[in-house]
Amino acid sequence: MRSEFEFIQHIKKQYSLSAIGDDCAVLPKDSDTDNVVTTDMLVETIDFRLDWTTPELLGHKALTVSLSDIAAMGAAPRWAMLSIGVPEELWTTDFLDRFYDGYIQHAKRARVELIGGDVSRSPDRLVIDSIVGGEVPKGKAILRSGAKTGDAIVVTFRLGGAAGGLRLLQNGRRLTDDLESWEANLINMQLQPWPQLGTGPFLQQIGVISSMIDISDGVSSDLLHICNASGVGARLDREKIPIDPNLYHLWPSPDEQWNAALNGGEDFELLFTLPSDQVPQLAENMIGGNDHGLFTVIGEITSNPGIIEVVRDGRTEILEPHGFQHFE
Amino acid sequence: MRSEFEFIQHIKKQYSLSAIGDDCAVLPKDSDTDNVVTTDMLVETIDFRLDWTTPELLGHKALTVSLSDIAAMGAAPRWAMLSIGVPEELWTTDFLDRFYDGYIQHAKRARVELIGGDVSRSPDRLVIDSIVGGEVPKGKAILRSGAKTGDAIVVTFRLGGAAGGLRLLQNGRRLTDDLESWEANLINMQLQPWPQLGTGPFLQQIGVISSMIDISDGVSSDLLHICNASGVGARLDREKIPIDPNLYHLWPSPDEQWNAALNGGEDFELLFTLPSDQVPQLAENMIGGNDHGLFTVIGEITSNPGIIEVVRDGRTEILEPHGFQHFE
Repeated sequence: MRSEFEFIQHIKKQYSLSAIGDDCAVLPKDSDTDNVVTTDMLVETIDFRLDWTTPELLGHKALTVSLSDIAAMGAAPRWAMLSIGVPEELWTTDFLDRFYDGYIQHAKRARVELIGGDVSRSPDRLVIDSIVGGEVPKGKAILRSGAKTGDAIVVTFRLGGAAGGLRLLQNGRRLTDDLESWEANLINMQLQPWPQLGTGPFLQQIGVISSMIDISDGVSSDLLHICNASGVGARLDREKIPIDPNLYHLWPSPDEQWNAALNGGEDFELLFTLPSDQVPQLAENMIGGNDHGLFTVIGEITSNPGIIEVVRDGRTEILEPHGFQHFE
Repeated sequence: MRSEFEFIQHIKKQYSLSAIGDDCAVLPKDSDTDNVVTTDMLVETIDFRLDWTTPELLGHKALTVSLSDIAAMGAAPRWAMLSIGVPEELWTTDFLDRFYDGYIQHAKRARVELIGGDVSRSPDRLVIDSIVGGEVPKGKAILRSGAKTGDAIVVTFRLGGAAGGLRLLQNGRRLTDDLESWEANLINMQLQPWPQLGTGPFLQQIGVISSMIDISDGVSSDLLHICNASGVGARLDREKIPIDPNLYHLWPSPDEQWNAALNGGEDFELLFTLPSDQVPQLAENMIGGNDHGLFTVIGEITSNPGIIEVVRDGRTEILEPHGFQHFE
């Protein structure tokens, strides 16, 4: 069966839709600025479960998924729209008020104005489409297609936390339980992710980033998008992957931790590339630049198109993309 | 229970979201131009049924609903995005290919480029969110809020056809049946509506239109949106309502035809107001301006806030909004 990604490539090619294929679409605004726009659909039971979260946190996350795409272009968000299909039984509760409360509190912090949307009925499942527009200096949006052989591959903060939170929720743990702090940390990574709003534009401004994507499907899948768009490959150093330390309590085995960090989606960290000789400059500039205060070089771009290698204990393995993909 | 409209008014007021409330949001682009953006969600079984239409026609209609909002601002469409949640059983057929084919053929005719979107999984129902952006000369977007007492109320082409088509589909008639021409006409009005893409910008350019909306919920509901936004009322002349002539075969009773024309949604015609003394100028300019070649003056704006009167055989009745509204 075709994957989502394959289908999108197919219609892009069939209809010559050259603009499709990055975290955001880029549109000219004026002589100094480009607009960027993104849309993300969240469907109940596929992307979230109402009994695992709160309406406020769901509102927060619905905005985060799109804000993260804006950050991944090096852009700053400006406006948002929200289409929502609501089942009858939710309409009669305070769900919508609480959902919008979480959404709009997050929007205010992100300095994004909700300018429109659509409130519709849905027969049984809640459906949310989150749309955000932003701005970036003209011609400066950071695309997936600019990675070059020899570039360093960098990620922000830590990986795997959202996957750990998902596992805890699947195991029946809830925010309302009496949680250990590591459990609460992981579940919060899953239910209330924060986009890298400061880091995205900061990386754009320093002017040396060659490609960028946000980690929504997992490092293995998202890095492959960069490799495919750039016609390159990648080599990761498994020991360098910044694993969320809370995962140790959930998965004492390092292999499981690495699996979560490489293949777990929804961390909403940024993955980017830059010439290796610019890494020291990045380190110098990073104070105050990264929302979470950390960048980690996890590997380098190779000339092996579409192949991601992982170096582990001196041996090299080929990484298959196992990140979250629909319809596989 | 709160209606959709009441809920939107509620969050607009609660969070001081002044930009919300027209067919499109308006954003500054550059010194000459404003951007407009709209989003419309269509949910299977609520807004469409797969066994009543074809994938191509559904793709066409998904774009029309948003193009119509762009036209209602007097704007020209420029780009489109599409988020779609697809059940597993459709993913294994040619549904998506045919859906995108209908969508993109329509986009090419409308000179709109599909620049992005999201393809996602849905557990059981198809969900579509259609997003279109457009442009209008700076400060010239036609809002719902400009209607003045004494203005003429005008609609494009004819009304009620889409409601007639819906009834035929509800009665079991299908495009694949051996249809009478009036049946085919009505069903096509429902399944393959065309937006007033030429008329919207034409009306903007003549510079005398005081307010405008597209007829998606029905004249009674959509005119009330204009009245509420403008702080005025309206008086309609029932004899002037341009009823789709195909409706005669479905509903020989004039009352039923009027009901469909006033309360039936999804005609995607434009309803607008202008000073009465400008109506002759509109008539002079209309050659080539209206996609369908027809405007009809159906009444006038009154100073009676929020009240829509209908004059019938010399008597005046108050019209309650009965257009298509979710959650009522």
